[in-house]
Amino acid sequence: MSKFWSDIVHKLTPYVPGEQPKLENLVKLNTNENPYGPSPQVLAALKLEAAESLRLYPDPNSDALKAVIATTHGLKASQVFVGNGSDEVLAHVFQALLKHSRPLLFPDITYSFYPVYCSLYDIEYQTIPLAADFTINIDDYDQPNGGIIFPNPNAPTGIPLALERIKKLLQTNTQSVVVIDEAYVDFGTESAVNLIRTYPNLLVTHTLSKARSLAGLRVGYALGAADLIEALTRVKDSFNSYPIDRFASAGAIAAMQDVTYFGTICNKVVETRESLIKALKKLGFDVLPSGANFIFVKHPLKSGAELTASLRGQGIIVRHFRSPSRIAPYLRITIGTDSQSKVLIEALADLLSEDAS
Amino acid sequence: MSKFWSDIVHKLTPYVPGEQPKLENLVKLNTNENPYGPSPQVLAALKLEAAESLRLYPDPNSDALKAVIATTHGLKASQVFVGNGSDEVLAHVFQALLKHSRPLLFPDITYSFYPVYCSLYDIEYQTIPLAADFTINIDDYDQPNGGIIFPNPNAPTGIPLALERIKKLLQTNTQSVVVIDEAYVDFGTESAVNLIRTYPNLLVTHTLSKARSLAGLRVGYALGAADLIEALTRVKDSFNSYPIDRFASAGAIAAMQDVTYFGTICNKVVETRESLIKALKKLGFDVLPSGANFIFVKHPLKSGAELTASLRGQGIIVRHFRSPSRIAPYLRITIGTDSQSKVLIEALADLLSEDAS
Repeated sequence: MSKFWSDIVHKLTPYVPGEQPKLENLVKLNTNENPYGPSPQVLAALKLEAAESLRLYPDPNSDALKAVIATTHGLKASQVFVGNGSDEVLAHVFQALLKHSRPLLFPDITYSFYPVYCSLYDIEYQTIPLAADFTINIDDYDQPNGGIIFPNPNAPTGIPLALERIKKLLQTNTQSVVVIDEAYVDFGTESAVNLIRTYPNLLVTHTLSKARSLAGLRVGYALGAADLIEALTRVKDSFNSYPIDRFASAGAIAAMQDVTYFGTICNKVVETRESLIKALKKLGFDVLPSGANFIFVKHPLKSGAELTASLRGQGIIVRHFRSPSRIAPYLRITIGTDSQSKVLIEALADLLSEDAS
Repeated sequence: MSKFWSDIVHKLTPYVPGEQPKLENLVKLNTNENPYGPSPQVLAALKLEAAESLRLYPDPNSDALKAVIATTHGLKASQVFVGNGSDEVLAHVFQALLKHSRPLLFPDITYSFYPVYCSLYDIEYQTIPLAADFTINIDDYDQPNGGIIFPNPNAPTGIPLALERIKKLLQTNTQSVVVIDEAYVDFGTESAVNLIRTYPNLLVTHTLSKARSLAGLRVGYALGAADLIEALTRVKDSFNSYPIDRFASAGAIAAMQDVTYFGTICNKVVETRESLIKALKKLGFDVLPSGANFIFVKHPLKSGAELTASLRGQGIIVRHFRSPSRIAPYLRITIGTDSQSKVLIEALADLLSEDAS
């Protein structure tokens, strides 16, 4: 606290990301990173950027990157906005498109950065409770609003919402922007990107941190009608002319282009997820349906806090959310490699058998 | 314009950065980049980052980078804030420290991003005219205010302000934050960093884009008392958890550590600046005093607009500001290599002799 702070700073409760431990040799299943590294083509492109040209600014508009993303999704470059990770993209989305006289709507259990953005930009919001089975019921959003945002699949549950439901939401909600945050869409959830041509108020956000194995590079993007993108660009150009550095641009371009590698590792993660779910169910866990690279699970005999602490003691890090209380019994487990799954299952089997003995 | 835009978007007049031309073989003297590439140690460190570990998030707090910056300046890590270029750092500074009931003060002729940030965050400001010789007169800032910011050396004039004057300003202005934007300080201007220990309301910002030849990597930082830094961190953690990617961190650390290379190229740029100033004066140019890697010059016989266009026709890009009208006669010329100086001088000599003939 200081007299030098702007008023807003006193009111902020910043987002707390999952731990990035500095210890080696941990089984790190806490921040939904991909267990596989980026494509070799990405690494080759990145090595070329370590050059004299770093003395020069990057393209402030990231035109080459936008062109590749547009091609990937069958859109025009004017329908693409890029940022320093999808968190930066979302920050601009909140400021540029979601601040209105009516409240923004989002689920009570969702990405916990959303209320933080609202606080940063003084945006009124209202949370809509998930159904008893943790699904999003789009009928609950049929009320006057200044915007709607949720991830699909939702976080931290991993539960996907059928495209048909999103279409229905867009048909009834035409007067405000609907943002579908598709950070995890590539692990088996249907994307809403193809609805962009039909619905001028649909904005879809993606990240290269998950399915494209580039959490360390910080690139995310938004797709939508050109006038939604223009609002984001106006805010970006009033905030930072050059958010995408030369490495981020080159690496992201190569990652979008290597479609084969992308498909292969996404499939591999989905396969590992399905085997892990089977094994956890055998140990008595309840597992929510997942269309993501993580699962949300609880055990009838051990609390989420207890399991998280015990796993940590064995060098396995998963994520636990203390609040809201409805999700406190759960663990969020990132899908790793098959061998990481094996280590996890053995550790959990031990923990549960200690309890039984 | 769109009904979907937040109100603020309608009111923005975004910053327009200097052109980043996609043509090759231009003599590019328009955006104050360093003519010399980064240190070989930086390039070596960057190559190592093109690795499997890119699948993992970077350290959200950039602790290793902050430690190196702190050591460089003889400060504690808690007195260091880092961001995605000094433009992002400045954006957070405006939102976190410069929004108060009294107006922010800055010069009428200065970095033209300042009023844009004010517009983005709805900050009241008042500009203070530079003196007739384009210098900042700190006595003009002796009035109630919600903060003071200016670059030293100032942009786009390049004129340095003596440290004694900044000290006097800090002695009289104790109730609001004073930000000294030292983007260009390493080219012969005295830094205010050593005043941080004495003045709890002093914040100094630096960039690695200029003296450290890393405009393409996007790293900037702020130095000040721990509670000023805490305000910036609270805003950053409400905006983007991971603004510094793995390359930016590794490259910046290596750049801060290679002090010898840094000193050598700064000296070289200053030498070239002094020879260029001499040659321009011989051609009849008025040259403002410069403590930066650029100079601000005008010629009694040719307008700034005319000279800029003629040079462009010969593949030489400099920067011209149409407004305010007081600086319209001037060109801002980035200091390049000696051979770029030679090309520039020959082109200008030709242009001026055509006129004479």
